[in-house]
Amino acid sequence: MFSTRIDSLRPSPIREILAVIDRPDMVSFAGGLPATEALPDWTGRISRRTLQYGPSEGEPDLRATVSERLVRLGIDAPPERVMILSGSQQGIDLVAKLFIDPKTPVAVQSPTYLAALQVFRMYGARLVDFDLLPAPDARLAYIVPTFANPTGACLPSTERDAVARACLDAKTTLFEDDPYRELAYDACDRNPIAARMAGGSWVYQGSFSKTFAPGLRLGFLAASDDLFGRLVMLKQAVDLHSSRLSQRIVFDAITDPGWDARLSDLVAFYRARRDGFDEALSRHLASVADWQAPRGGLFFWLQLRDRIDTRELLTEAIERNVAFMPGEEFYPGRPTLGTIRLNFSHAGPDAAERGLRTLAELIRAVDCRR
Amino acid sequence: MFSTRIDSLRPSPIREILAVIDRPDMVSFAGGLPATEALPDWTGRISRRTLQYGPSEGEPDLRATVSERLVRLGIDAPPERVMILSGSQQGIDLVAKLFIDPKTPVAVQSPTYLAALQVFRMYGARLVDFDLLPAPDARLAYIVPTFANPTGACLPSTERDAVARACLDAKTTLFEDDPYRELAYDACDRNPIAARMAGGSWVYQGSFSKTFAPGLRLGFLAASDDLFGRLVMLKQAVDLHSSRLSQRIVFDAITDPGWDARLSDLVAFYRARRDGFDEALSRHLASVADWQAPRGGLFFWLQLRDRIDTRELLTEAIERNVAFMPGEEFYPGRPTLGTIRLNFSHAGPDAAERGLRTLAELIRAVDCRR
Repeated sequence: MFSTRIDSLRPSPIREILAVIDRPDMVSFAGGLPATEALPDWTGRISRRTLQYGPSEGEPDLRATVSERLVRLGIDAPPERVMILSGSQQGIDLVAKLFIDPKTPVAVQSPTYLAALQVFRMYGARLVDFDLLPAPDARLAYIVPTFANPTGACLPSTERDAVARACLDAKTTLFEDDPYRELAYDACDRNPIAARMAGGSWVYQGSFSKTFAPGLRLGFLAASDDLFGRLVMLKQAVDLHSSRLSQRIVFDAITDPGWDARLSDLVAFYRARRDGFDEALSRHLASVADWQAPRGGLFFWLQLRDRIDTRELLTEAIERNVAFMPGEEFYPGRPTLGTIRLNFSHAGPDAAERGLRTLAELIRAVDCRR
Repeated sequence: MFSTRIDSLRPSPIREILAVIDRPDMVSFAGGLPATEALPDWTGRISRRTLQYGPSEGEPDLRATVSERLVRLGIDAPPERVMILSGSQQGIDLVAKLFIDPKTPVAVQSPTYLAALQVFRMYGARLVDFDLLPAPDARLAYIVPTFANPTGACLPSTERDAVARACLDAKTTLFEDDPYRELAYDACDRNPIAARMAGGSWVYQGSFSKTFAPGLRLGFLAASDDLFGRLVMLKQAVDLHSSRLSQRIVFDAITDPGWDARLSDLVAFYRARRDGFDEALSRHLASVADWQAPRGGLFFWLQLRDRIDTRELLTEAIERNVAFMPGEEFYPGRPTLGTIRLNFSHAGPDAAERGLRTLAELIRAVDCRR
């Protein structure tokens, strides 16, 4: 009845969880939601021109601004190879559509961003483990090298070099997803792998959701010359172009003289939140879990000492108004049990304290029942 | 190197034409662009809540409002089976993704909306002619019954009944695309075919691009119960959700007490533009082409007496600053030569006069060369 790609379609745990997090009193560590109080206030006027149809690649001034910033990072991304996306999730769909037939080998980290796994699976990809380097037969290598989702890890410079080299040698297209790079709380190498891909085939994408506002649904990609034109055609077929109003607002925001200061404030705000969360974790979960405070991004990744299936834990947690993301969902293959992803950006300190206390109680109760 | 679906990917003529219509002095009859002067002026404030992530299905209040209106049209579309889209082009991609494997038979009108044909082809559809009724083996029947693109035709009531009956009998999913229904200048049956599909499988979609503003990229769909949940999962995988700001603005606009008056004014404005265009056509093209004034929508569909390939004519026209859409692009199979789609909503009366005079000269010159 449906296309074969629908066979692999399952309700996303994100979706199910997003459906309950609006409940009053719910403490959510689940989604990668920014702190609502850190979002901008916007008042303005929209010109009629902005409300007309626009170009599929995006607004020229926004593309030029993104290009400038990417070039400064060493990426070969002139304005004519920058495309504005309706959120970086769209980039994942477009790149998957460009490359993946049933059984196409796609290298992914394990664990990695679950909504990327879902899309790759839907197009029929054979997921192969990145391990240290992408498998030589992989057509595409998807990687979140900076403050990875879900682990928060930041790949060292030598490994970034090695990934680029492996992709170039095997003629594998690098697909670098970099939504968290601006949210850096401690020093580490954040230089894009895409900046090391001269002569190769690559897509680099980023997002305005974490630094500005997710509700506008805006991201961007840059790609090597062999890919860009086709990605634009695919973009046109899915939504003609992204909201011009969102593009106008984001352009105004990121070219505002106050943008860098806003970004510093945001980073300071999230750094403090991370530190507070780390302390609260130590108070409540030190005896049942291990973790490392992430140097950037939005997540703590916990390994429980007791390897319980955290999907079952989630059901109990939601009954007690606490949401989190079971780590099992992030594995391309057999999951490591007992892992949990906790978002620390959305809940305020009091809610986080309450939520972590509850979580600790639930984990201890499971341990006692076993 | 790329997925097999990329083989059928060709640059869209819309895209190529959109790239030149911003030239100064260009008269464009090509795209389905609203009159820029008929677009709203908007000034407002965005709350932080609106800028946070939101639900994949769309904002509950907007879904409820759309539902009310669809139910009034006789469509079985409760709020929980209404989804907000990032433009109705997105609906085409989602429905195609849900149904089409390589060689899946899809019934389409001939001619029909070219960007739908492109998407169906990309997913590998075997396009079968709708002719009077969808072929009995078609899995999906795509139809624009009201002010069709490109012909402007409005399907009579008896034929709407017959299409619904044929889909129900053959268990073909009806995919009704209805972006122009509000732009009705003369009386005709506009009752959706989807309202006649009780017990069957159907998707009905509409757009806010023609009545409000294309630049916000917002549309909606409703679907029968067997399809809706899967469409939401697919929507989530492509962009998580549509811009909440666009949704907020559209909700405010369509629930404003002045909305119906705005719509009447818009229809009056376009009716006058259609009538003026019809007269200008008669002055300039009566001896070389045949047409019927459309009862609604945004297009005149011309049949040239001389069956020239209008794709060649387009090249000459663009050199003289006139753009139009060659009819050949709208055919799923072998095209009827000598057809042209002219948009009458975008160009003002003076520009239209100039553009049609030029077009007439070019057509006569081709006739003389033959």
